[in-house]
Amino acid sequence: MTAGRLPRATLVLGGQRSGKSAYAEHLLESQPGGLVYLATAEAHDGEMAERIAAHRARRGTRWSTVEAPLELAPALAQAAGPERTVLVDCLTLWLSNLLGAERDPDGEAARLVEAIGRLPGPAVFVSNEVGQGIVPDNALARAFVDHAGRLHQAVAAAADRVVLVAAGLPQTLKHPSA
Amino acid sequence: MTAGRLPRATLVLGGQRSGKSAYAEHLLESQPGGLVYLATAEAHDGEMAERIAAHRARRGTRWSTVEAPLELAPALAQAAGPERTVLVDCLTLWLSNLLGAERDPDGEAARLVEAIGRLPGPAVFVSNEVGQGIVPDNALARAFVDHAGRLHQAVAAAADRVVLVAAGLPQTLKHPSA
Amino acid sequence: MTAGRLPRATLVLGGQRSGKSAYAEHLLESQPGGLVYLATAEAHDGEMAERIAAHRARRGTRWSTVEAPLELAPALAQAAGPERTVLVDCLTLWLSNLLGAERDPDGEAARLVEAIGRLPGPAVFVSNEVGQGIVPDNALARAFVDHAGRLHQAVAAAADRVVLVAAGLPQTLKHPSA
Repeated sequence: MTAGRLPRATLVLGGQRSGKSAYAEHLLESQPGGLVYLATAEAHDGEMAERIAAHRARRGTRWSTVEAPLELAPALAQAAGPERTVLVDCLTLWLSNLLGAERDPDGEAARLVEAIGRLPGPAVFVSNEVGQGIVPDNALARAFVDHAGRLHQAVAAAADRVVLVAAGLPQTLKHPSA
Repeated sequence: MTAGRLPRATLVLGGQRSGKSAYAEHLLESQPGGLVYLATAEAHDGEMAERIAAHRARRGTRWSTVEAPLELAPALAQAAGPERTVLVDCLTLWLSNLLGAERDPDGEAARLVEAIGRLPGPAVFVSNEVGQGIVPDNALARAFVDHAGRLHQAVAAAADRVVLVAAGLPQTLKHPSA
Repeated sequence: MTAGRLPRATLVLGGQRSGKSAYAEHLLESQPGGLVYLATAEAHDGEMAERIAAHRARRGTRWSTVEAPLELAPALAQAAGPERTVLVDCLTLWLSNLLGAERDPDGEAARLVEAIGRLPGPAVFVSNEVGQGIVPDNALARAFVDHAGRLHQAVAAAADRVVLVAAGLPQTLKHPSA
């Protein structure tokens, strides 16, 4: 059923525990062919390990998992294909890993946008909206929100479709071929 | 005027001081019959007491008030009726009370959703969108946002209509019979 | 080209680093006549000075700049005109300056709304959505979010058009003559 084929790149934004990952997974479940979960998480601590396990349990057997805490652009290039759909979950965690490894977030964002431009099949990117609360006192937290905002703007500009999820409900911010 | 009768359950989400309560009260003012304000607040401190007084002053004489800081599902079942409309304000405060009393928030959310399914007349639920800022450092605050997100997803799934208010302006996230 | 002339007052809300200022500047670039940048920022510290310089570099030569950290209503009345378009960036910074100077935010908001009602030409107001994260522990931060929310509601009610920007993408919350 080509009618329901996802466009090349979809960005799914949403607040903490907004249902954004479940919504994104639901988008992929309707796709033909293989499904690849490109995880940016590392199971550093118990809380995160629990979340990863819950994610894994929610996904079915059609999925394969690839971990890419830092090298997201090459992992995406390798995972994507005309017969597969890739889910990248999530970009804010990747950003957090980049900052922890003292990588340049703007340079890495540019590499990701370039990889999106060369995608041979559909991909869905999940990310955490973090900028609509009070501006943090803490300079590091403020810088994180700034980096996340720039990353979201760059990926949204490169994406065919952008969706904002709240309370499990999607709002389309950008429509394909609009 | 039955044309303007509210559907069984409406969820009104909005940020802090977004105008969500005033919008919800406005929805109720157009309804026939009695209006019940089901308050989850307790007047613990001066700040909260002031807010409750301001709320009370804004509402007119058609309203009666019921306090339900913890036992929301039974209070809703008792307050609702075919000739009345109920306003529950607000769910995040109720969640906060539940956590303070060491109740299980997921179990209580399930009881609320069940009560929504049996409503004999319209109800409007107000809640605070708290998940679109930076993920809190503090584990308790992070857990609160997680609980609130799950509660919003559950009530949104059970609701006929979901509205997100910003700067006093409503955006409909879910339409009745959509 | 009168068809593309902006309405009297437009409010552009958006989270931190959401692209709200770039979107607002883009709105003004399509306007005929002079463009006035009414800056509420003061270059207190290095971080803010850098942001102001980046803003200045992004704007072209059609722009003139006026600083109004506190006296926004009279500065707006003076800057506006039938042959000019004014950009006020941003209201949350102005609010922060007002609180620092121990001015009454509600009184100042009323003066601004009155000035909006008498505008002789279009103006665009940028402001930071700060209320959709967790309610701050800190009473001062909580009060700031309350003041910002009330200010946004007042300006949104006076505005002809209200837009919420996320990831660089605008959503219209209020349409002209709606």
